[in-house]
Amino acid sequence: MKVLVIGGSGFIGSHVVDRLLAHGHSVRVFDRQPERFRPPLPQVEYRYGEFADRMALVEALSGADTVFHLLSTTVPSTADLDPATDVRDNLVGTINLLDSMQRLGLYRILFLSSGGTVYGIPDTLPIPEAHALRPINSYGIVKATIEHYLEMYRRVRGFSPVIIRGSNPFGPRQTHSGVQGVISTFLRRVLERQPLEIWGDGSVVRDYLEVGDLAELCVCAATSDKEGAYNAGSGHGLSINQVVEAIRNVTDLDFKVVYKPGRPVDVPRSVLDCSRAKNDFAWECKTEFESALRSTWDWLKKHS
Amino acid sequence: MKVLVIGGSGFIGSHVVDRLLAHGHSVRVFDRQPERFRPPLPQVEYRYGEFADRMALVEALSGADTVFHLLSTTVPSTADLDPATDVRDNLVGTINLLDSMQRLGLYRILFLSSGGTVYGIPDTLPIPEAHALRPINSYGIVKATIEHYLEMYRRVRGFSPVIIRGSNPFGPRQTHSGVQGVISTFLRRVLERQPLEIWGDGSVVRDYLEVGDLAELCVCAATSDKEGAYNAGSGHGLSINQVVEAIRNVTDLDFKVVYKPGRPVDVPRSVLDCSRAKNDFAWECKTEFESALRSTWDWLKKHS
Repeated sequence: MKVLVIGGSGFIGSHVVDRLLAHGHSVRVFDRQPERFRPPLPQVEYRYGEFADRMALVEALSGADTVFHLLSTTVPSTADLDPATDVRDNLVGTINLLDSMQRLGLYRILFLSSGGTVYGIPDTLPIPEAHALRPINSYGIVKATIEHYLEMYRRVRGFSPVIIRGSNPFGPRQTHSGVQGVISTFLRRVLERQPLEIWGDGSVVRDYLEVGDLAELCVCAATSDKEGAYNAGSGHGLSINQVVEAIRNVTDLDFKVVYKPGRPVDVPRSVLDCSRAKNDFAWECKTEFESALRSTWDWLKKHS
Repeated sequence: MKVLVIGGSGFIGSHVVDRLLAHGHSVRVFDRQPERFRPPLPQVEYRYGEFADRMALVEALSGADTVFHLLSTTVPSTADLDPATDVRDNLVGTINLLDSMQRLGLYRILFLSSGGTVYGIPDTLPIPEAHALRPINSYGIVKATIEHYLEMYRRVRGFSPVIIRGSNPFGPRQTHSGVQGVISTFLRRVLERQPLEIWGDGSVVRDYLEVGDLAELCVCAATSDKEGAYNAGSGHGLSINQVVEAIRNVTDLDFKVVYKPGRPVDVPRSVLDCSRAKNDFAWECKTEFESALRSTWDWLKKHS
C-alpha cells in the first residue's frame, strides 16, 4: 500500500508508521510537526501542515491509495471546553478530507475512533460494536458523528471505510502533558515525585491497550477488504485504583494519591468486546498489562 | 412563558407560534425573514437576523425564559449535497446558541429533531425513543449530533432540554418548493397539472403528522418539567403509493405518476412509537390523515 498517515507524528501515529514500515508499505506522513521523541525516519516522506489547510492536504493525498486518519486536534479532557471549535476543527476538517479524497478518486480510509467515548454509558459489558452510540462528551460526540458520515459516504459516494474504536492506548512516546493518557500522566508524576490526582474514588474502569497492539490492528484492518467498525482493546477492565497498584509494583516508588470530585462526563465502566477483530483478523491484544507498563516506565525514565 | 421561537417564521414555526399564543404565552420570533403566507401577527415581537449572527441572537434571547429551536438552514434532500456547510450552519450554530444561552442564565430549550432521519434504518417498528441513533443522511446526522450535545449540556452545564422527534409533518403554510414535504410537493404538482415524481417504487413508508398536532406537542412538552426525547408522529405508516391514492380521492383530479430510481439514503420504513408523549402529556395525533390532506389542499388552492 501507499499510505498517507494523517497524524503520523503523534503518539499512536508514530507506532502505526513503525508497523506499516515493518509490513513493507510505502509511508507518507501528514502532520503539523515532526515526531517529538524521534528524529525523522529516512524511509518516510514527511509533509507538515495544518489539517485545515485543504491545499496542503490535497498535495499530501496525491499518489496515496489508502488514508489513515489518526489526527485529532483535541483530547477528551479539553474538547468539552470549546465544543464549537472541536466540531469545526475535527468534524468539518474530516468532511473536507473526505470531499478532497473523492475528487482524487481515493476511497479507502482507516479512521481511528474512540472505543472509550463513543458508546457513552454502556448497557452491557464488554461492549460489542453493535452497541448504540450515545457519547456524553464532545470528543466522543465528534468521533461518533464522523463515523456516521463515513457510513453515509460509504452508502452514497462509494467510500470503503474501516473504523478502529481504540480503548485507552498507552506506551512509549505518549506525550505526558497531563491532559491525555492516565498512565503516562501518572508515571510522569511519579517520576517527578508529585502526588497522583484521581477524579472520583478510583473505581472508574477502563480497558488499557498497549499502543503497538493497536497499531498492528490498524494495519491488519486497512490491508483487508473489510469495512465498518472494530473495537480495539484488551477486553479486560482495570480500575484506576488497580492501575495505581500496578504502578507501585512496576516503579517500586512511593507516592501519594489525591482523590478529587468525580466528573459527570466520565463513563463509570468501559471494557470492549474485541471478538470481531479476533474473528476477522486473528488479532488480539498480545502485550500483558504489567509488561507494557514496565516498558512505558523504562522509556519515560530515558526521555524525561 | 416568555418564549423565543427561533425559526418562528417557518412552516412548523408559524403553527407553534399560533399554539403558544392560544395558550396565552408571550412570543418573540427570531428568523431570517417574515412568514411567507401571513402578515406579521400583532401580538408577536419579530426580530430578523441570521442564525450565525451571535449578537443579533443574544439580543433576541434577552428576557426570554424558554427557547424553541426550530430552525434548520437545510432540508433532508439538500443537506447531503454539502455536509460541511450543513455542520457549520446548523451544528456549530446550535452550539453557539447554547453557549449564548448559558451566558444569559437561560437553560430551558425545546429542540425540534427529526424522527424520520435520526434512527436510520430501524431495528423495530414502530420505533421507540430508546432505539439507537444511526442516521444515514447529513440532515439526520446533524440532528442526532445536536441531541448528543444537548444531553452533554444537560449533564455538565445544567441545561434542561426537551427534544421533539417529529415524523413527517404536513399542512397549510408548508412551502412547496419541491425539496421538502412530499405531500405539499405532490399537491402543488397536481394543482399545476404536472406528473408526480416518486423515488423508488412507492413502497417507502412514512409516518405523516398534521402540523398543528406537532405544534401542540411542542407547547405541551416545553411547558412541562420533562426532559429528553419524545417521538411525534401518527403512529401509523403510509406508503407513498397510499399517499398518492389519498391525493386522488381528495383532489378528485387525474394525474400521472413517474417512478424514478430509489435513493440509497432513503430509509425504507419509518413509523414512530409515540406512547411516551401519550403517557407524559396525554398527547396524541388528533387529526385524521385524509381530513388534514383536504385542509392542506384547500389552503394550497387559495395560496397558489
